[in-house]
Amino acid sequence: MRIALLGFGSVGRGIARALLAKDLDIAVTGLADSRSGIIDAAGIDLAAVLAQKESGGPCGNPGVSPTDVVTKADYDILVEVTPTNVETAEPALSHIRAALRRHKHVVTSNKGPIALAYPELRALANENGVFLKYEATVCGAIPLIHAIKEGLAGNTIARLYGVFNGTCNYILTRMAAEGLTYEQALAEARELGYAEADPTYDVEGIDAAIKLVILANTILDMHTTLDDVERTGITLLTPEALHLAEDQDCTIRLIGEIVPGAGVLRVSPRIIAKTHPLVVEGTLNAVTVEADLAGELTFIGKGAGSTETASAVIGDLLYIRERHVQGS
Amino acid sequence: MRIALLGFGSVGRGIARALLAKDLDIAVTGLADSRSGIIDAAGIDLAAVLAQKESGGPCGNPGVSPTDVVTKADYDILVEVTPTNVETAEPALSHIRAALRRHKHVVTSNKGPIALAYPELRALANENGVFLKYEATVCGAIPLIHAIKEGLAGNTIARLYGVFNGTCNYILTRMAAEGLTYEQALAEARELGYAEADPTYDVEGIDAAIKLVILANTILDMHTTLDDVERTGITLLTPEALHLAEDQDCTIRLIGEIVPGAGVLRVSPRIIAKTHPLVVEGTLNAVTVEADLAGELTFIGKGAGSTETASAVIGDLLYIRERHVQGS
Repeated sequence: MRIALLGFGSVGRGIARALLAKDLDIAVTGLADSRSGIIDAAGIDLAAVLAQKESGGPCGNPGVSPTDVVTKADYDILVEVTPTNVETAEPALSHIRAALRRHKHVVTSNKGPIALAYPELRALANENGVFLKYEATVCGAIPLIHAIKEGLAGNTIARLYGVFNGTCNYILTRMAAEGLTYEQALAEARELGYAEADPTYDVEGIDAAIKLVILANTILDMHTTLDDVERTGITLLTPEALHLAEDQDCTIRLIGEIVPGAGVLRVSPRIIAKTHPLVVEGTLNAVTVEADLAGELTFIGKGAGSTETASAVIGDLLYIRERHVQGS
Repeated sequence: MRIALLGFGSVGRGIARALLAKDLDIAVTGLADSRSGIIDAAGIDLAAVLAQKESGGPCGNPGVSPTDVVTKADYDILVEVTPTNVETAEPALSHIRAALRRHKHVVTSNKGPIALAYPELRALANENGVFLKYEATVCGAIPLIHAIKEGLAGNTIARLYGVFNGTCNYILTRMAAEGLTYEQALAEARELGYAEADPTYDVEGIDAAIKLVILANTILDMHTTLDDVERTGITLLTPEALHLAEDQDCTIRLIGEIVPGAGVLRVSPRIIAKTHPLVVEGTLNAVTVEADLAGELTFIGKGAGSTETASAVIGDLLYIRERHVQGS
């Protein structure tokens, strides 16, 4: 099986390292980041490219663009792992469209195209008889989409809610455990690399809202956009509010919730009993699904990280291979 | 899609009710319990059979045996949901063999055949080009096998451990919460229908051990039998032991554990921090998987119940239909 890899940041390199460490019989025949690229039908030497990139060099030739890789390389599956752009989803969206039109399967970890253009991309994949997979866009290593679409096939989902953002969960965990203020806990999260210099995307609940839109549109048959999500972040939470919750054996978590029957998508800080399975510590993610036959199920795991995201991407790649890869 | 249903106890009736409630386009063309059966190529009237059975009548004609249904009915998938026999796996084992030899897919909730004869049945299914699915044999409604085999494809599992028996978990939850003795908590579990008159199978860890053998042999590439499981039950646990654990913010749970690299399968009461995701209350099941790429993942849900088991069976049925049902 041959893949083309777009994006060679943390996630792209995580995938390259996993492919090197495991004997999965997957060749990378095209690879590009925003500055350079390589096309090699015989299979790219990933160890050499990783070494070059990690010593500060480019991943390839500055004359080879992502568009060249998408449109000219010889591959079965495009693996699109460039950074998320929630305004336009570009340039990932154009690359995914081009690959689908070439009858190439697509696996992506990029929330932008799936949150903004899923119906169009799904139709394009169906027209061209190829798979479009996106497990890595929601909750990192937790195989949530697989579990719901396949494992819970036949169930009707009445409600889905959980902790979708590890940065917020870390901040809330530290505020509760140490009595820190929001600002103190955020500073600590930044020092540890769990929060960006501009934390707006995480702490205002935008990241969680995007994941809700993806789940709503892709597995819950809803038609929503980011504007449909009622959203409150964690920036105004005080240590006193957390203490009050603790006094009742509860705590506060930033909960994203979908109620398909009522058309509700909501992200907000919620008081939750400490014994509830969703009360996870640190940067973990956790999602509870209420299904009519299966009852209440909770999935807990790491929501981010290069190796964890690589796990979801590789799961999708092997899913496609098991079912259908033309020409291999 | 046409199925033949063997077993019309709690699970079989749960499946029948789910099929009646949902428009899944699945016809039942054969149905039998140990006393009677029906074969009807046009599709059995499940509502009528359920009503008859629930008013104390037979499910069908005493002249139609399970063997008749397996060997003569016209169906795509045999759904085998008779009670588990861990000594011989019979009569389920013979019925499953016969169906596979007829090139029929098999979905089962019966732990006996999968725990005792998986390699033989897997080979038989492969030879005959059909699916053999068994999600319902482990942890009821939790789509654990789907999640690990598909969602975590490409991962190596270093360790898998969890709460596999809801009866024991209920007893331990009550001992810790109320200071009950083992005998008191067991009596309460019996009253609520969570424990059998003879609770040996649950409280001695045999049920959990069987589930470990199934997971080890079917998704962890091991070759084990029930005798390979080190096993200690919960019958000797005292309220004092639980109090000691509580004093350290811990509790005690009956944990089943597999360490594939060390060839270890073990069921025993273990002290575990209360903040660990595995510490679930009541009759829930919970399983933690340590995977090399995905990291630590925990799955929590209902481990038993007719509707919950039906969820797993129906997930398997739709999995097979999505991929391949001959003649439909």
